[in-house]
Amino acid sequence: MSGAHLPLGDGREFDAIRAMLEEWGPRATGVGDDAATLEMPSGAELVVSTDASVEGVHFRREWMSASAIGARAATAALSDLAAMAAAPLGVLLSLVVPERWQSDLLALARGVGVAAANAGCPIVGGNLTRGSELSLTITVLGHASSPLRRAGARSGDRVYVTGRLGGPGAALRALLASETPAAAHLARFIAPVPRLREAQWLAAAGARAAIDISDGLLADAAHLARASGVTLALDLESLSRMDGVTAAQAATSGEEYELLIAMPADVSVDVGQFVRTFGIPLTDIGSVHPAVAEAVLIAADGGGLAHGHDHLR
Amino acid sequence: MSGAHLPLGDGREFDAIRAMLEEWGPRATGVGDDAATLEMPSGAELVVSTDASVEGVHFRREWMSASAIGARAATAALSDLAAMAAAPLGVLLSLVVPERWQSDLLALARGVGVAAANAGCPIVGGNLTRGSELSLTITVLGHASSPLRRAGARSGDRVYVTGRLGGPGAALRALLASETPAAAHLARFIAPVPRLREAQWLAAAGARAAIDISDGLLADAAHLARASGVTLALDLESLSRMDGVTAAQAATSGEEYELLIAMPADVSVDVGQFVRTFGIPLTDIGSVHPAVAEAVLIAADGGGLAHGHDHLR
Repeated sequence: MSGAHLPLGDGREFDAIRAMLEEWGPRATGVGDDAATLEMPSGAELVVSTDASVEGVHFRREWMSASAIGARAATAALSDLAAMAAAPLGVLLSLVVPERWQSDLLALARGVGVAAANAGCPIVGGNLTRGSELSLTITVLGHASSPLRRAGARSGDRVYVTGRLGGPGAALRALLASETPAAAHLARFIAPVPRLREAQWLAAAGARAAIDISDGLLADAAHLARASGVTLALDLESLSRMDGVTAAQAATSGEEYELLIAMPADVSVDVGQFVRTFGIPLTDIGSVHPAVAEAVLIAADGGGLAHGHDHLR
Repeated sequence: MSGAHLPLGDGREFDAIRAMLEEWGPRATGVGDDAATLEMPSGAELVVSTDASVEGVHFRREWMSASAIGARAATAALSDLAAMAAAPLGVLLSLVVPERWQSDLLALARGVGVAAANAGCPIVGGNLTRGSELSLTITVLGHASSPLRRAGARSGDRVYVTGRLGGPGAALRALLASETPAAAHLARFIAPVPRLREAQWLAAAGARAAIDISDGLLADAAHLARASGVTLALDLESLSRMDGVTAAQAATSGEEYELLIAMPADVSVDVGQFVRTFGIPLTDIGSVHPAVAEAVLIAADGGGLAHGHDHLR
């Protein structure tokens, strides 16, 4: 954990870092050297991703607490590990903090610490610097013996999605219109959950491609389809979705951090066990086909493959 | 490599990422999934660090080219791997880019790519988002079978420093005074070098503690001394330094990215071989002692240990 070299004043900066380390307690490890060291399980691949949350771009201060901002930023990054079915090893936090956020620094740190603890991994490093705009850049490290990739889907596979979609999109629409979001929608927007254990369950069950839903189901389905060289046929009406949300809204709601999975058709997925274990739905929403011009086709009423998804956007 | 989810427009953002990937060519690997995967050498420890460079805090636009800003940000992070004597595995780049910097995006990326290539490692991931303030957060991954730590110095050790100090501090003083820095000073400020191979040479030679000089020799010597529970006695007059720089200036110049090393006294260091191999000095500047109240003592003219270093700051 180190700080900016020019200004801010060593004392104040080190004090802030010390306070953050105290906030994290035993959840912060390996801090104090120029870099942190971690043991890697032998034979596993190292899985890494980095993600930034910027005030005014990814959130507004009046929308949620500082602690929620920290937790949500960490979740967005941890979700990338989930998409690879990787087990988390550690989190690094780089903070750019303006003067007006100084009093919220510990709450931001607390949120990151809670998200890391929920993911069962320590905070292994970080950086603190001043700036004019609050940003949190979170880097996550994990390991996987057989990482799931976007490119793994094959014609004939079934397509599954975790959870109930539409909450974040509905909450964001309300907030941007200065309306009060439904509590359930807001909770999904403010406190999303990285589906880490769910991903490992799905990988163990036989899943062979995955992506997390950050841009919206349809957009991320298109990413997965293009990476795999296939076309996905999705029945949006079958989507599990939040109350008060249309299928089209659910399919275009971003920052869900749910998972989209391709599973060989001959795998018998124990959906009931998944639901009992994780308390969220696992829904078969379609199938994988040889590539046509459209990456994603949407089943119209009655089941025909009517059209691509672009007109929904 | 992924982008901000709310605004900027998928198209433009993905175009920018594509352009960066083309700029990097084969130096960018594993990009395109939610996370990157890397092979770890078996038996080695994973070494990680993250560092941010923010406009107006760590640099000003008029001081250097966008490419130099990118390379310098990467160097600051890579230097943390050098301080641990780790071999680099990969670099992740998270960029927050304001509109006014859009046209410099590829030059920033090029600089990071050049620094990564010089360190012999690929760019394995990243993130791009808009914001009102330019920042580059670089996360570096490396491996080491026996990482050097700050806490390893022991009473009786000799203290060495790599390179010629004082350039960055002198350049910064000139720039802040709107004067023209000496070219040699400016080069050290704009284009510092992470001492990665030097660190591995020193570790192989027997070094048992190290820190990189980012806050200034005296401040970093104090960090190392406190971590090791010792006191360092340094003869600043023996420092290799840039022309036109006093010993005190050299000892307080930050962002050097040179290394401060503790070496057992019974190790015969082949300084000549170091100089021939790397083309920079390796200088014995003092010794390690049992801890007294001051973490660092400075040898006065004639060699006596006269005083702590705080009065120099």
